Amino acid sequence: MMSSELRKRILDELEALVLIDPHTHINPHAAASKNLGDIMGYHYYTELAHSAGLPREQIEEPGLDPKEKVGRLVTKLDDLENTIQVSWLLEMCREFFGFEDTAINADNWEALYDKAEATMAQPDWEQQVLKQSGLEQVYLTNDFDDPLEGFDTSLYIPCLRTDDLVFHFGKPETRERLQKATGVEVKDAASLVDAIGRLFDHFTKNGARACAISLPPDFSPQQVELSDAEAAVQLALSDEISAPDESATLSRFVFWTLAEMCTEYKLPFDLMIGVNRRVYEGGVFQGQDLFDKRTSLILYRELFNAFPQVTFPISVLGQTSNQELVSYSWIFPNVVTNGHWWYSNIPAYIEQDCRSRLQAVPKTKQIGYYSDMYKLEFALPKFAMYRRILAKVLAEDFVIERGWSEQRAIDLGKLTLRGNVEAVFGG
Amino acid sequence: MMSSELRKRILDELEALVLIDPHTHINPHAAASKNLGDIMGYHYYTELAHSAGLPREQIEEPGLDPKEKVGRLVTKLDDLENTIQVSWLLEMCREFFGFEDTAINADNWEALYDKAEATMAQPDWEQQVLKQSGLEQVYLTNDFDDPLEGFDTSLYIPCLRTDDLVFHFGKPETRERLQKATGVEVKDAASLVDAIGRLFDHFTKNGARACAISLPPDFSPQQVELSDAEAAVQLALSDEISAPDESATLSRFVFWTLAEMCTEYKLPFDLMIGVNRRVYEGGVFQGQDLFDKRTSLILYRELFNAFPQVTFPISVLGQTSNQELVSYSWIFPNVVTNGHWWYSNIPAYIEQDCRSRLQAVPKTKQIGYYSDMYKLEFALPKFAMYRRILAKVLAEDFVIERGWSEQRAIDLGKLTLRGNVEAVFGG
Amino acid sequence: MMSSELRKRILDELEALVLIDPHTHINPHAAASKNLGDIMGYHYYTELAHSAGLPREQIEEPGLDPKEKVGRLVTKLDDLENTIQVSWLLEMCREFFGFEDTAINADNWEALYDKAEATMAQPDWEQQVLKQSGLEQVYLTNDFDDPLEGFDTSLYIPCLRTDDLVFHFGKPETRERLQKATGVEVKDAASLVDAIGRLFDHFTKNGARACAISLPPDFSPQQVELSDAEAAVQLALSDEISAPDESATLSRFVFWTLAEMCTEYKLPFDLMIGVNRRVYEGGVFQGQDLFDKRTSLILYRELFNAFPQVTFPISVLGQTSNQELVSYSWIFPNVVTNGHWWYSNIPAYIEQDCRSRLQAVPKTKQIGYYSDMYKLEFALPKFAMYRRILAKVLAEDFVIERGWSEQRAIDLGKLTLRGNVEAVFGG
Repeated sequence: MMSSELRKRILDELEALVLIDPHTHINPHAAASKNLGDIMGYHYYTELAHSAGLPREQIEEPGLDPKEKVGRLVTKLDDLENTIQVSWLLEMCREFFGFEDTAINADNWEALYDKAEATMAQPDWEQQVLKQSGLEQVYLTNDFDDPLEGFDTSLYIPCLRTDDLVFHFGKPETRERLQKATGVEVKDAASLVDAIGRLFDHFTKNGARACAISLPPDFSPQQVELSDAEAAVQLALSDEISAPDESATLSRFVFWTLAEMCTEYKLPFDLMIGVNRRVYEGGVFQGQDLFDKRTSLILYRELFNAFPQVTFPISVLGQTSNQELVSYSWIFPNVVTNGHWWYSNIPAYIEQDCRSRLQAVPKTKQIGYYSDMYKLEFALPKFAMYRRILAKVLAEDFVIERGWSEQRAIDLGKLTLRGNVEAVFGG
Repeated sequence: MMSSELRKRILDELEALVLIDPHTHINPHAAASKNLGDIMGYHYYTELAHSAGLPREQIEEPGLDPKEKVGRLVTKLDDLENTIQVSWLLEMCREFFGFEDTAINADNWEALYDKAEATMAQPDWEQQVLKQSGLEQVYLTNDFDDPLEGFDTSLYIPCLRTDDLVFHFGKPETRERLQKATGVEVKDAASLVDAIGRLFDHFTKNGARACAISLPPDFSPQQVELSDAEAAVQLALSDEISAPDESATLSRFVFWTLAEMCTEYKLPFDLMIGVNRRVYEGGVFQGQDLFDKRTSLILYRELFNAFPQVTFPISVLGQTSNQELVSYSWIFPNVVTNGHWWYSNIPAYIEQDCRSRLQAVPKTKQIGYYSDMYKLEFALPKFAMYRRILAKVLAEDFVIERGWSEQRAIDLGKLTLRGNVEAVFGG
Repeated sequence: MMSSELRKRILDELEALVLIDPHTHINPHAAASKNLGDIMGYHYYTELAHSAGLPREQIEEPGLDPKEKVGRLVTKLDDLENTIQVSWLLEMCREFFGFEDTAINADNWEALYDKAEATMAQPDWEQQVLKQSGLEQVYLTNDFDDPLEGFDTSLYIPCLRTDDLVFHFGKPETRERLQKATGVEVKDAASLVDAIGRLFDHFTKNGARACAISLPPDFSPQQVELSDAEAAVQLALSDEISAPDESATLSRFVFWTLAEMCTEYKLPFDLMIGVNRRVYEGGVFQGQDLFDKRTSLILYRELFNAFPQVTFPISVLGQTSNQELVSYSWIFPNVVTNGHWWYSNIPAYIEQDCRSRLQAVPKTKQIGYYSDMYKLEFALPKFAMYRRILAKVLAEDFVIERGWSEQRAIDLGKLTLRGNVEAVFGG
């Protein structure tokens, strides 16, 4: 009892804190949802419903009305009721739409849909969600050719997403987008570096706070000899299919260039390590990626040594990578733990990972959480889940085990939830 | 206190459920034990006693009387008293034979042995064990050439074990057994496929519910070109020692053929992933196998994509593989989590794995537990261990953390304990 | 409440036990600290302060006064207050120097420094620390050419550290040290074996209780053909740079020879598996090493089979290696679990690892803990941390879950804390 009351008191304090969400996939031109279809269209629900047996064709039928789509997904919700993802859905419906049942089912979903749609139709819905969720700023993940116009960049903070540059420069459309965005026609390694520099220029002028990339488990950043880089660039420009070695060289060259730009433009470089794309090719949109746990941060040894001025907030996809992340952050000044990503973003893993980080990484080097959301409504239940776990760990490991005062534990929690976001990304 | 009472109430409900045990090594012609030697001859006890210092020669002395064998093993039980395996032994002795001491030792083992032997001599002992254990059906692991005769296949459900076919087809005795079982003389790849088809025919006609195999950590299923398969089969038939590459090709060909038959015969394909055989060659019978944790479900990518109609209940030997299993089951409709296998079958790992599965895998895609037993008496303590952990997780994660009703949590537990066994394997 | 009182009672009993610390880096000629600089100079504090932003140059400035060094480190202590390592520091200051504040900061550190220095100046300080820490014997890690003179080898127990022999025999200084220590000029494989034998002779005559080595994650011990060994030795002697293959052969030959000597001299062979040296080259002294979790005990298969008479107490650096350690100790009679090493030596990991070991490894095959300390004062807080976790696991898993008596649980704890140290290393 005492322990649960303590935890509750700590949680109350954490819940009072206004947040900055340092990694999302929000479209700032349509940040909030318009109906339940926007929420349940999130890949967590479509992929789980598909995993439970709903054919992809029914979920992704061209021209499907959002309400009909929700109706189809609802048929599978009972099979998913145990998942933490469905608990987020219920919490959103409870908190935003006053939903009071314990499950969304055939009997109640239509009323819920209509209620939600009416609520979301309010002109200030986006602001309501931000306020109710306690969100002050939301970091984006912008395509490298995003003009960054037409939205409030002091609320929606740009971040430069670079996957396409590193892994798809061999595709003509990537190069066209790059040329259009920068005015630079890439003819060689030097003009490629020039073009990338212009992207950094554009992004930092628009208030960007990070460069970000997701990486496959076997990626190993290394400095590339200029002559090798040149050969790889020329091959890519020739529109011939690159050999794997060549394209690995090109990826490394672009990646290394990004790190150099992060030094020059003083941007943190968010690394999201470990995802294999398109593993399940028959899966729904964004529900095809998985991972190979046989990866190691030792692959980043050369990078961390070469760029002491760049801060690397690191997310790992595999929970078995967490101890390496703890240890590398404990040793390397420029390595910072960052959130609980995707397949590791469930309470069973968050609790273990949060606990080990708080026990062994300097408190100033931990970004507690980000929502990774596509629609604004998700920050509320995701941060709520994290704060409950954080409050538990603070209560048990710090107040009870180590005799800390409650206030000291709360301050530690607030630092990882918000203070470090400001310190690491600038604010 | 409240939490432990809650857990107790949930446990009581789970204990009332009659079970189907979906994976065992029971010999249906001698399912129950005849004496304590049958129970303590289980490799868990012989290998642990040997690990604690009892020479293999003393344990496996030819012609050793079972009582004498038990007496020798008892000398090491104190060294093993901490293990969960010895707690199973005590629970069996308590529940089946009224044993009341807290340990089996030099002073009490003979009386226990005699009491147990007398109890087990009752003509209906097998039925008593089934009833007391709450077992309705017990799945077997039959050699591919098992005639499946002389036992009740509605109680003891056949499953086709295929390790020998996939990994030992190069041995003449395997091929002889195959010919004897099917009447087909394998002369080429086509006749090998034909022979395997006849096994499936035989097994499914006798009520088989699964094809099963255990796999080494480096096995990677892939479709093989027919010409390569043909060459590999011919080499195997030639009685020459295959090169590793050739035998890998053959293994892949046979494995892929099994998956094709699973499609045709609508059988789930139980994959038990990660065991290295005969690592400790001086070990006791069945106490020589270990593992290399450096494996990944990414090795099964091609398989899962190629056979969407086949359900793959998957057991992983390494606890560090559990998150991959959770994630692959969350994404692939045809991947199902299956029990807690061997070196992962201890409470410390079961609790973590159970928790993560219940938080992220559709509830209909989880086979909670199987006993893996060789003798019928083991289902009772093994399932009891699992249910206690399951009740704890349901109480803590669902009723307390997520506000579920007790009944809803109990229903979830029952689904993973039994409902899904019926749904996945048919029943 | 009941549970916390139970845990407290078990802890009280464990705290009353006088300990043998079976692995440290104590210098027996200067075992205790002289000032707070000796304590805070421990790499855990320098590397964490550096990780939190203190430049290496400030920490390792040549000729830096210890008090000034402490003052500089103190500026970063607030950033590290969450770490378990800083909790050790506070516990030392509280227990040894009567420090009563909750943090060491700009206001109080000088008084603490002076108080500590005065306390440590007492002529019997070393004895006081040993007594207050409940330490009866302290195992050392001696260089192979240590004369082992000038200290009480019944208090400070020699152990032969062999990293230099296995991994740096190619360096002329290693060979010179070997010649000086043994009087043998290594001219070939046979004389190398002879020289190593003399080291064992010298160490065992001086009461050595173990041979010890730390190993990189990709090391794979194998027996080497004598001709290959001879070639590798000759190449090393030629002062030419060895190819990686050659030096791997030499490392394997020396390692295998050590195992043979352990058989002959009846010494346990402590293996500390998994460290990559000098990963962060800009790091502080002893704060540069990290690891690659992609390692497996399967690499030691040949070794464990070849030396059944040698006991191998094994420490793993990666927490993801713990299950393999549990399983290999459960199967191989000569494999013993040993402590919680370095990056795994934090409560979050100790608790999981302790729990799984106690559930599945014979109780006689577990060395619960060693301090790994460089200065004597560290045993107190490190063992205190371990005992609290051990008491928790004994209370929860054995008394509550399995119905053991408190005394039985306490006895199990004492066995792993002390009894097994005596049994495994002799005493």
